Amino acid sequence: MTRERLYLYDTTLRDGQQTQGVQFSVPEKVQIAAALDAMGIDHIEGGWPGANPTDSEFFENRPATRATFTAFGMTKRAGRSAANDDVLAAVLNAGTPAVCLVGKTHDFHVTTALGVTLEENLDSIGASIAHCVAQGRETLFDAEHFFDGFKANPGYALDCLRAAHEAGARWIVLCDTNGGTLPAEVGRITAEGIAAGIPGERLGIHTHNDTENAVAASLAAVDAGARQIQGTLNGLGERCGNANLTALIPTLLLKEPYASRYETGVTRDALKNLTRASRMLDDILNRVPLRSAAYVGASAFAHKAGLHASAILKDPATYEHIDPALVGNERVIPMSNQAGQSNLRARLAAAGIEVAPKDPALARILEVIKAREDQGYAYDGAQASFELLARRELGLLPDYFEVKRYRVTVERRKNKRDRMVTLSEAVVVVKIGGEKMLSVSESMDETGADRGPVNALSKALAKDLGPYQAHIDDMKLVDFKVRITQGGTEAVTRVIIDSEDGAGHRWSTVGVSPNIVDASFEALLDAITWKLVRDGAVAA
Amino acid sequence: MTRERLYLYDTTLRDGQQTQGVQFSVPEKVQIAAALDAMGIDHIEGGWPGANPTDSEFFENRPATRATFTAFGMTKRAGRSAANDDVLAAVLNAGTPAVCLVGKTHDFHVTTALGVTLEENLDSIGASIAHCVAQGRETLFDAEHFFDGFKANPGYALDCLRAAHEAGARWIVLCDTNGGTLPAEVGRITAEGIAAGIPGERLGIHTHNDTENAVAASLAAVDAGARQIQGTLNGLGERCGNANLTALIPTLLLKEPYASRYETGVTRDALKNLTRASRMLDDILNRVPLRSAAYVGASAFAHKAGLHASAILKDPATYEHIDPALVGNERVIPMSNQAGQSNLRARLAAAGIEVAPKDPALARILEVIKAREDQGYAYDGAQASFELLARRELGLLPDYFEVKRYRVTVERRKNKRDRMVTLSEAVVVVKIGGEKMLSVSESMDETGADRGPVNALSKALAKDLGPYQAHIDDMKLVDFKVRITQGGTEAVTRVIIDSEDGAGHRWSTVGVSPNIVDASFEALLDAITWKLVRDGAVAA
Repeated sequence: MTRERLYLYDTTLRDGQQTQGVQFSVPEKVQIAAALDAMGIDHIEGGWPGANPTDSEFFENRPATRATFTAFGMTKRAGRSAANDDVLAAVLNAGTPAVCLVGKTHDFHVTTALGVTLEENLDSIGASIAHCVAQGRETLFDAEHFFDGFKANPGYALDCLRAAHEAGARWIVLCDTNGGTLPAEVGRITAEGIAAGIPGERLGIHTHNDTENAVAASLAAVDAGARQIQGTLNGLGERCGNANLTALIPTLLLKEPYASRYETGVTRDALKNLTRASRMLDDILNRVPLRSAAYVGASAFAHKAGLHASAILKDPATYEHIDPALVGNERVIPMSNQAGQSNLRARLAAAGIEVAPKDPALARILEVIKAREDQGYAYDGAQASFELLARRELGLLPDYFEVKRYRVTVERRKNKRDRMVTLSEAVVVVKIGGEKMLSVSESMDETGADRGPVNALSKALAKDLGPYQAHIDDMKLVDFKVRITQGGTEAVTRVIIDSEDGAGHRWSTVGVSPNIVDASFEALLDAITWKLVRDGAVAA
Repeated sequence: MTRERLYLYDTTLRDGQQTQGVQFSVPEKVQIAAALDAMGIDHIEGGWPGANPTDSEFFENRPATRATFTAFGMTKRAGRSAANDDVLAAVLNAGTPAVCLVGKTHDFHVTTALGVTLEENLDSIGASIAHCVAQGRETLFDAEHFFDGFKANPGYALDCLRAAHEAGARWIVLCDTNGGTLPAEVGRITAEGIAAGIPGERLGIHTHNDTENAVAASLAAVDAGARQIQGTLNGLGERCGNANLTALIPTLLLKEPYASRYETGVTRDALKNLTRASRMLDDILNRVPLRSAAYVGASAFAHKAGLHASAILKDPATYEHIDPALVGNERVIPMSNQAGQSNLRARLAAAGIEVAPKDPALARILEVIKAREDQGYAYDGAQASFELLARRELGLLPDYFEVKRYRVTVERRKNKRDRMVTLSEAVVVVKIGGEKMLSVSESMDETGADRGPVNALSKALAKDLGPYQAHIDDMKLVDFKVRITQGGTEAVTRVIIDSEDGAGHRWSTVGVSPNIVDASFEALLDAITWKLVRDGAVAA
């Protein structure tokens, strides 16, 4: 059976940038475009040339892509010709093979926001699209507020689509701009558009997540006949975000009826890079990735309940809707006080530690975990610390080094320019194979600003670990989480540290103490020790 | 037109707790249950009594609720009677008016995970449900893996539903346990359940968000005839989470066809507390609230695009699908602080500070707040720091004292008994009315254990404040919260400190810095200064 082609249009670089606090630099846009292109996305919308200096610069330096590079703009203003509209000219001047113009289709917006007549607006749509088509560009029409417009005045909304269609638009994209239309209604109204004469193979869908239904509404439009989906990586976008391509792509490739019925530009091989692409975007945004994200979240295949974990051991299909490897993600069987020995064995096996069923060490490890969880430790987010704990109980942890002592000082005082500044300094004394090494470090970032005592300790500790130095040189601390596990003056601090190596592998460690510096130090030590174990370092 | 009743079942306290890293304490469960009850949720599932010590303790101390309190458990094991099953007995012993039992409906799971015959499983379902019903409990059956089970063996999956129905289950809940079933399929299979003889008014739906479709799938089941929705606050739950009630509730109350067709236990008035309830849960979890969350996110009504923002000024309906006030949320328009000023005046008046409308200080205060929020400050939870900030701008803050410098040392080393110990010591130098005072303190609790650098600083600062000493002697630090506001190496720490005076009054202050000690010190300073202002202390 031949499958029908379904097209994917990415607007991370344009609509995604409407997110509060998001502003991509040109190199970041280049990096994102490359990832989208490698994934097999059909169109990459790069921004609005002329509206934003960064966007203009990006178009001047746009990377070569297999995907169709698209410039975004809007239909010409009333009262001038398309050829004389400077905003439209700036969009065309970007020289992209495709152009996407947004235009009004809701009568209320035409009169309220634009302040022109309904006729003038139809003319703007038709003339603008025809102008771009005449210049040889693949032309898309983003029908803004189409669903709300259709509900208010179906005849006019459809007239707008027809104006674009008759002017030669390759794609007419039905936009739920305010994000309030539910999936069933999106499906029904899309079908009405097709019934009114716009062929489904020219219809696209553009939804927003204001009711948490953007993905479902996109699927409903495809079910009704639309053949292009617009969305963003990680569902980035204004307000609640756009339709999340990171969730849509695996659904289209792996789930029925889509997998058998449609073909996209994304191969099963490229799909394996999905998790990495998602994390890359978060990295650029300096965001902590959403653990619960569909398909790509760190928790998406994490099995906490004891019953689930023991079934997973018998057959992963019992509690997993897909194999996590298909999207480049991983199964996680976290520890918690709800888990039993089978859960523990599975987690150890995942870490490459085979323990026979009913080995008495299993009960011992569970005891230690329980006691430490009572003190405030949490191992389900700190796999590396869990592994070290288990190795210690199993006699599988080499004696790499011993920290004899450390001292951290935080001082706040006036500098010579009479400004208050803070300075942190750490001294760490480590004994390795009978030899004592003393390291000291301040804590400064590139701007000379203090980053605090934990940073100073981390730097001092990593400064000289003698024979192990090569193993830790590519390590960096990428995230740091603090939680007070008991309120009030009895406050106990739990610190979770995420570390990363040069190849992008991440691991998490935990430390607990009433003293936050001590808790952090414990997590730092675990992070280094785990890296040495992982690398198979030999104890000096 | 009379509306049909649609029931809402919350499982935040049970399935929500399956989230990686989530473990509620008993007081936290009580607090969440109270919020759910105030919202008008029909059933509150409290946990699994017997499976977890915290859950058992919670059921012993469960709060009085208007909502039907429900204990979760599983159907009896094969080979024993329902009356002799200790796991089932523990669930019934919790004494809740309702009981929800999960049981298998997928033949593969019955044979693979349970290892019993299909007949034995049907008997377990029927006998367990009948046993609970005979004890006078409202009984629910969670049909685990129903959708996958139906696809594999529809006859058997429906037999399981019938066994529960015939045994007297009030609700038969169709669970998409692995979260992989898409909305259209959920709707179709739900309709098949009704066609097979289970009335829609006895059917519930329980979905997971593994394809980002849990909300849409719940709606599809309702469209097909189901009348109970199970979900969690903020979509908490194992892997990618459960159906998000925080998104579903406003959709059911505000969107067609649901608003006209159905009635829930949630009133329009209670809906106004939705945003607050959502933030409360994040607070308990010490999570940064998801800005892009549907309806309740801080960005859900934030309009960044210039075109959108100017249209919003003409008429908010242009770019908003609902009025944010309906769910207790707020519009955010970067360019206009018109609404900001009247809010600010109201908040200042609440603190006893009267400012005339259009006083230029108002705009200045908003500027400072905005700049500081960009740095990571949060004034919603730190009223005392907000008040000090406003007083400073208004020239209403006396010059009580100046901190010239401080130094904190944390040292970890062996003590004379050769045990590793940690010591913290702080020196603070303060200038009051021309006089310099130097104080030093260690940090020890009654047991001689170190409580860390912040505790040492707090003690040193409060040791001698000269003429103000009487005002601060009855102060104590009662809570301390730490949040990392940006991930990665740029981590900035926000500390919120709650203080209390001898009469039991509390106030909260905030400090922000990349250095956690510095952030804490800033919050401590604000706490003392606010107490002096509140007491009307006269500057020395």
